[in-house]
Amino acid sequence: MVHTLEWDGQALIILNQVELPFRVVFRHASCMDDVVEAIRRLEVRGAPAIGIAAAFGYVLGIREYSSEYRSSVNRTDQVNRTDQANRTDQANRTDQVCQETQGEFAAHADKVYRTLAAARPTAVNLCWALERMEARLKAEALAEESLDTLVQALEKEAQAMMREDAQINRSMGQHGANLIPQPRHGRDRITILTHCNTGALAASQFGTALGVIRAAHTKGKKLHVYVDETRPLLQGARLTAWELWQEGIPLTLITDSMAGCLMYQKKVDMILVGADRIAANGDTANKIGTYTLAVLAREHGIPFYVAAPMSTIDLKTADGSGIIIEEREGDEVRRIGSHAVTLPEIPVYNPAFDVTPAGFIRGIITEKGVLEPPFFQSIREFCER
Amino acid sequence: MVHTLEWDGQALIILNQVELPFRVVFRHASCMDDVVEAIRRLEVRGAPAIGIAAAFGYVLGIREYSSEYRSSVNRTDQVNRTDQANRTDQANRTDQVCQETQGEFAAHADKVYRTLAAARPTAVNLCWALERMEARLKAEALAEESLDTLVQALEKEAQAMMREDAQINRSMGQHGANLIPQPRHGRDRITILTHCNTGALAASQFGTALGVIRAAHTKGKKLHVYVDETRPLLQGARLTAWELWQEGIPLTLITDSMAGCLMYQKKVDMILVGADRIAANGDTANKIGTYTLAVLAREHGIPFYVAAPMSTIDLKTADGSGIIIEEREGDEVRRIGSHAVTLPEIPVYNPAFDVTPAGFIRGIITEKGVLEPPFFQSIREFCER
Repeated sequence: MVHTLEWDGQALIILNQVELPFRVVFRHASCMDDVVEAIRRLEVRGAPAIGIAAAFGYVLGIREYSSEYRSSVNRTDQVNRTDQANRTDQANRTDQVCQETQGEFAAHADKVYRTLAAARPTAVNLCWALERMEARLKAEALAEESLDTLVQALEKEAQAMMREDAQINRSMGQHGANLIPQPRHGRDRITILTHCNTGALAASQFGTALGVIRAAHTKGKKLHVYVDETRPLLQGARLTAWELWQEGIPLTLITDSMAGCLMYQKKVDMILVGADRIAANGDTANKIGTYTLAVLAREHGIPFYVAAPMSTIDLKTADGSGIIIEEREGDEVRRIGSHAVTLPEIPVYNPAFDVTPAGFIRGIITEKGVLEPPFFQSIREFCER
Repeated sequence: MVHTLEWDGQALIILNQVELPFRVVFRHASCMDDVVEAIRRLEVRGAPAIGIAAAFGYVLGIREYSSEYRSSVNRTDQVNRTDQANRTDQANRTDQVCQETQGEFAAHADKVYRTLAAARPTAVNLCWALERMEARLKAEALAEESLDTLVQALEKEAQAMMREDAQINRSMGQHGANLIPQPRHGRDRITILTHCNTGALAASQFGTALGVIRAAHTKGKKLHVYVDETRPLLQGARLTAWELWQEGIPLTLITDSMAGCLMYQKKVDMILVGADRIAANGDTANKIGTYTLAVLAREHGIPFYVAAPMSTIDLKTADGSGIIIEEREGDEVRRIGSHAVTLPEIPVYNPAFDVTPAGFIRGIITEKGVLEPPFFQSIREFCER
């Protein structure tokens, strides 16, 4: 199984997903701006992976404060070495310098947070990860550690998040695999349709919706996966097809427009997708095209499941109307890689996500178990567990 | 307005749509096989345009018989010039030669018909056009004309079909334009979503569904057209966007997966698509992705109209289950032009069309007026008019 993200102690090594499946290239992100660029350019994508990348981006961003911070620490040290006679006067000046430095540092940390949070507006895991890093920073800062100690603590926090993500994905996989039914009479396989990429590439390891498929396959369930290509950026064709193929899970690639026809032909038993943000009532933002699949699923009586870690749930957002949908540049639609598909002057609408109302969702698979409707209630209960 | 097909007396000049919108290239199809290749490669596409191309292909195919046919005619002439004494004996031999020749010619004409009909299995206009050409051939052949006269008659028939198609498209445009409502309160435009290309490029001129849009625009109705890119072959992005842009009709290009999101956002007032074959009950085969739009339209209470000439109606097919759906090669999905989007070994399903059950269709716009549900009844009535 592929490793999307790796921390080597100095830099975050990011598997550049834009180049997949044709080239396996890594970006060595050694500063925060590198991480921001990788997130913006979708070199790293998928809600859990974005969260982890942002956590390490935060470590790098805080570390970048070092020069000024260190010089201020040195100044304080020098002040402390002045002779006893001037102690009171000097101590006052030291406090002043420390306060100024702390103010500067807080402003820097705040800028790091905001820069990373703005990289992509829809994925809630990004903010969730940053909030957790900020909380750790504040707890450490209270202990008035040196910057090196602080950065080490943040590094540990980000590494813990990466480990936890892998564990969470495995738990989701187990809960989800139990939902996959037996093949229908006369069939030898269960057919699952999935959208975008929710695999190992979208997380630290294993994956969310694709993690469920992987877990079921490992358990010996006979599956066949229909993979939507997922225009405009073709995460299905480029990434999901590649992951499934590598692991020997049977698949068929289709264009997004073929999903309805497949369902009409009774070729789909179940739909499994991921999520980028889930509102408190269960309304779910996910890759553009997900809502269309949900409408088609209901029309054909096909169960439609979302798989996402609890960190995707945004209790501050009451329902889908409050979810900000990222609009991306038109060239993603006008071009496919370097290949133009229309004239450069053609106007384009390019929302990266859509919102599927809770009413279309049969269940939300999380690491704590499967949330069932009514979601506003089950989500509250699960969050309190 | 672009001319897709032109007959120069010797060859059919076909605007090669595979190269659009980046290069305007024409194929001079001077033999039947050229026409078959152009249809197969989608250089000419769209049900009405395929029909006309096939009609001229039939002219070329019949003309190709000339060498053998001419020699047999000459042999017959020589026989007729023998002296009176051997007349009876020779006359018998002449009859025999004529019968053999006629048998050969009938076999050739049949082969021409079958070769052209097999070029694409779903578009009914292709068979409709060939049947009309065959009927003309048989009527002419009864008059025992020379091959040249026969070919001239067929040429006239194909030219008449081309003129009639332009007239039919204009009539459809007028009937359809009347269906387009006034903008909703607070809006200044009617928004229409369309799929694939049903414009001048899909017919001899003007177009079917796009012809309706063109007619409404000409009448001064304020429109905004959302154009589905229409994977795998991107007829929307390459052809429809190009046609609308050239004529100054406001448009926005989207990927196929965005249609649901647009409808949810109440940005679509009406859906207009073409058809490749309409069964006797109104079930409609059209470009893959049409059925998905129809399901979404019903979910959002948006009127869904089909625009197609009466020749698209196939009374011999009772309902959609009898329509053969062409499956095309997987590389159309695995590649976009010369650009690979996934690995060459990934399995693909690539149906070129899907069937929209009649129940999803608000009306079928034809040159005779707008067919309304129940279609099995209105279709029968219109066919008898």
